[in-house]
Amino acid sequence: MTTPRERVDVLIASWLDQRHADRIAAAEPDRVNVMYEPDILPTTRYEADHHGPHRPITDAQRAHWASLLARAEISFDFDWEKPKEMLQRAPNLRWVQSSSSGIGPMLDNIGVAASNLVVTNAAGIHANPLAEFAITAALYFTKEIPRLNAEKAKKAWNRYCGYEIAGTRMIVVGLGGVGRRVAEIASAMGIEVVGLRRSGDAPPGVTRMIDSDGLDAELPNADFVVMIAPDTPLTRNMLDRRRLALLPPRAVIVNIGRGSTIDETAMTEMLADGRLRGAGLDVFAKEPLPETSPLWDLPNVLIVPHSASTVHQENDRLVDLFIENLHRYLDKRPMVNVFDRERKY
Amino acid sequence: MTTPRERVDVLIASWLDQRHADRIAAAEPDRVNVMYEPDILPTTRYEADHHGPHRPITDAQRAHWASLLARAEISFDFDWEKPKEMLQRAPNLRWVQSSSSGIGPMLDNIGVAASNLVVTNAAGIHANPLAEFAITAALYFTKEIPRLNAEKAKKAWNRYCGYEIAGTRMIVVGLGGVGRRVAEIASAMGIEVVGLRRSGDAPPGVTRMIDSDGLDAELPNADFVVMIAPDTPLTRNMLDRRRLALLPPRAVIVNIGRGSTIDETAMTEMLADGRLRGAGLDVFAKEPLPETSPLWDLPNVLIVPHSASTVHQENDRLVDLFIENLHRYLDKRPMVNVFDRERKY
Repeated sequence: MTTPRERVDVLIASWLDQRHADRIAAAEPDRVNVMYEPDILPTTRYEADHHGPHRPITDAQRAHWASLLARAEISFDFDWEKPKEMLQRAPNLRWVQSSSSGIGPMLDNIGVAASNLVVTNAAGIHANPLAEFAITAALYFTKEIPRLNAEKAKKAWNRYCGYEIAGTRMIVVGLGGVGRRVAEIASAMGIEVVGLRRSGDAPPGVTRMIDSDGLDAELPNADFVVMIAPDTPLTRNMLDRRRLALLPPRAVIVNIGRGSTIDETAMTEMLADGRLRGAGLDVFAKEPLPETSPLWDLPNVLIVPHSASTVHQENDRLVDLFIENLHRYLDKRPMVNVFDRERKY
Repeated sequence: MTTPRERVDVLIASWLDQRHADRIAAAEPDRVNVMYEPDILPTTRYEADHHGPHRPITDAQRAHWASLLARAEISFDFDWEKPKEMLQRAPNLRWVQSSSSGIGPMLDNIGVAASNLVVTNAAGIHANPLAEFAITAALYFTKEIPRLNAEKAKKAWNRYCGYEIAGTRMIVVGLGGVGRRVAEIASAMGIEVVGLRRSGDAPPGVTRMIDSDGLDAELPNADFVVMIAPDTPLTRNMLDRRRLALLPPRAVIVNIGRGSTIDETAMTEMLADGRLRGAGLDVFAKEPLPETSPLWDLPNVLIVPHSASTVHQENDRLVDLFIENLHRYLDKRPMVNVFDRERKY
C-alpha cells in the first residue's frame, strides 16, 4: 500500500485529446492531481497543434485559469495566456515540459531562461518525421520532380537520363535525434554522410565527423546540406553568404532546424540564379513566411509551413515522454531532455 | 603466353561512349575483335539511351552494318535495323547481351524466344535507381507534396498535422534485384515490407512473404503496393479492377515494372474518385502515354516517361556486366542474367 501523501498538482496548458489527459492521470494514480480544462485552452487548428488561437473565454474562466496556474507545481507546456508572467502567476511551478524542441530563444523571451525553473524539451519526438522530410526533399530534387511535373502539365513524354542519390554526399549539421535519424536513412540509401557537431564520435550511418572549422572545406563537395541546428549564438547565420557560395550548383539545402541558421536572402538569390539546385524548407527567417518572399515563386523550392515535425503520432509520443519524466520527477530521479541553459538547447 | 587463336567477333549494336567500347576491347585484348561503328547506330536522345531514332545512313553504311551482323558471334544489344530478321542476318550469332531487363514480350515479338540463341538481360543494373524512384513516390504522397505545392502557389501558410511513413505497410510484388533494394531502403525507414514472389525465403528487409494467392488478403491493409513484375502471362493484369477495389483509400500504387500488370483504366478511375491516394508511374499500358490519357490531368499522379531506371551510371554498369559475361562466355563458364525461356524473364 502507498502511504497517503499530498498529491502534486499537474497543469495541462495546451490542448490534448481527453484520452491523453486520462493517460497522464492513470500513470500516477496516487501521486498527482491532473488539472485539465480544455474549454479554456487555445483551440487546435490541426491535430497536435499546441499554439492555436485563443478562445473567447469569460472572466470567470480567466480567473479559473489563473487559479490553476497558482496551484501548479508541474505544467505541460507554458502559460498560453501571459507566458512572460508565468513565473509570477505560478509561484509553485518547479518543472515545465515543453511540447517544442528548439526553445532557447523563447525561454529568453519569456524570461524563464534566467530562472531556476526546470524545463524539459520535446527533443527526439520530432526526429523521425523531420528526418523523413529531409529525405523527401533530397529525393524530390535528385529525381527532378519539379521538372517532371512541368513536363506532365504539358503532357510531354520525353525520356531522359536522371540521377541517383546513392553515391552522393550529405552534410548533416546537428547530430541530435533528428540528425542521427537522417544519417541512418541516408546511409541505408547509399549516401555518404558527413556529420557536424561540437564533439563526440560518429553515430551509426555517419561516415565522417567534422566540427564547424571543417565546414568550409566540405561545402564544395556537398550534394546536400541538411541543417538541423537549434537557434543559438553559435549557429546563427552559420550558412552565411560566404559559405553558401562555397557550395556547388548541384547542391540542395534542407532546413529543418531554425531559419536563423541560414542567410535566407543570399540563399534565395542563389536559388533564383541556379547557383543552387534546390531547397526544402520547413523553417524561415520570419514565420509565417511573408507573402512578399520571393521563395514562394521559385520552382526549385519546397515549402512546408513549419509542420514537417508534426504527425498524427506526435501527442502520443509527447505524452509518453511527459509520463516518463513525471515518474522521474516524483521519484527524484534525473529527467530526460532537460534544457541546457549553457548550450541553450 | 596465350596461344594464338581465332578472335571472337563482338558487335556493339547500340550507342555507347567510345571509352566503353575501348573498355570492352581492353578487357579481352587477345580473344575478341570489337566491332563498333557509332556513326551507323541510332542516335541517343539522352545518356544511356539504347533505343533512339535511326540516323539517315547511306546504302554503303547499311551494307556495312549487314556485314558486321553477318560476322558477329556476340552482340551487345539486338539489331536496331531489322530486329525480326536478326537470326537470319547474323547466322554466327550465339549470344546477345540486352541493355534492358524485362525483355520477354520483345523476344517473342522478334522471334528469338523460340530459338536457341543465348540471351542475357540487364536485370540488376536498374535496381537501385528504380528502388529510389519507388521510395521517392511513396514519400511524395505520404508527405503530401502535391497539396504543399498547391498551397505554395497560393502563398498560403497553413500549419497542419501530417503523416509518417514509418509504421506503414508496403507490398512489394516481385523480389528480384529491384524489389530487394526497395525492401532494404523501405525497412530502414521503418516500413513493414510484405514481399510477393513465387518461391523462396524472405530477403533482408522483407518481414513476411506471400504468394499471389495471398495477395487478396493483404491488399486491404496496404499503404503502398510497389509493382516490379515483368510482363509475363502470370503477371498480366495482376492488379485488376477487383483487386484494386480491395485497397484502402489511403493506398499509393507505384509501378516500376510493366504497365500491363495493372488495369490502368480501373486505377485511373479510382485515382480520380479519391478511392486511391496516389500513383507513381514509370510504366503504362501504352507507351508513350497517349495525350488523351486522363492520367496526365490527375494531381495525385506522378508520371515518369519510362526513365526511372536510367541514370548517368547506367552504361558503366551495363558494360561491367557485359565484360563479366564476356569472360565467362570465352571461358565456357555459366553466364549471369541468362534469360529464362520458361519463366519469360
